[in-house]
Amino acid sequence: MKIAFSPIGVIHTPYGSPEGVPVQPVFSEEKTATVEVFEEFREGLKDLDGFSHIILIYCFHKSDGYALRCRPFLDTVERGLFATRAPRRPNPVGLSVVELISVDSGTLTIAAPDMVDGTPLLDIKPYIKDFDVRTNMRSGWYEQAANKKQTVADKRFLTDTNAD
Amino acid sequence: MKIAFSPIGVIHTPYGSPEGVPVQPVFSEEKTATVEVFEEFREGLKDLDGFSHIILIYCFHKSDGYALRCRPFLDTVERGLFATRAPRRPNPVGLSVVELISVDSGTLTIAAPDMVDGTPLLDIKPYIKDFDVRTNMRSGWYEQAANKKQTVADKRFLTDTNAD
Repeated sequence: MKIAFSPIGVIHTPYGSPEGVPVQPVFSEEKTATVEVFEEFREGLKDLDGFSHIILIYCFHKSDGYALRCRPFLDTVERGLFATRAPRRPNPVGLSVVELISVDSGTLTIAAPDMVDGTPLLDIKPYIKDFDVRTNMRSGWYEQAANKKQTVADKRFLTDTNAD
Repeated sequence: MKIAFSPIGVIHTPYGSPEGVPVQPVFSEEKTATVEVFEEFREGLKDLDGFSHIILIYCFHKSDGYALRCRPFLDTVERGLFATRAPRRPNPVGLSVVELISVDSGTLTIAAPDMVDGTPLLDIKPYIKDFDVRTNMRSGWYEQAANKKQTVADKRFLTDTNAD
């Protein structure tokens, strides 16, 4: 069974290659980036400007293949892939919660990007407290992760030998 | 440009059709459901059991076509599609933050499902406070939504005339 998606837009960021991209928006030092939504989909952006945060769903288009175990940037131990946010996944879907600064026609300005320039955008969803915020959660390996200082990507996911 | 994904598993829930499915996990009265991860991907589940909550990314497989404006279940006003979580989207990607109760080989037991039975699973990500929790956010139309009592789906997204 194949499911075919087509981009609804493209994310423009200052990061030309995966190496050096912040691991998550929370680690980004870039102040803004833009999300270009293709003209045929812009009508769907109505009312989005009422939300301070949005969920961007996109394709890790620079990702090739996957490994079911990997060492996350923020840890020193190999983990199961689905317990990480690493880009080399069976379906290379990326997800970032970002602050929405403005909506101008088909261009969204967002804060603190963590995507490679040219990333194909698949969907935009409003971030809603009642749906998306959980408290009193446990965050597994992340809570004691030994390498939390590595907040930007290195080359480890650019080859298929990353699970060393 | 087409991006082809293949399911990594299937979500089993008590909801046989879209009508009557809870709008979000927070509205679900079902106590549990199961996520079956296909055997070839199970190695990637290692370490997931340390997380109390996970993000499921799946395909709205019962969704046909899309409308760029729609009236969300929880409101009485037509909104831009990307300001809603409605299922009829250009790329029918669904996203739910769910509580993870247990991991037993390739079967995850989750709390409070909000998907149709048989939903194709595309990805699993750990829910991590530092990445996914935002505070002091504005939630646009949702904050004053006039129909917050409608917490289960009706038929409106089962036809292409839902934007009435």
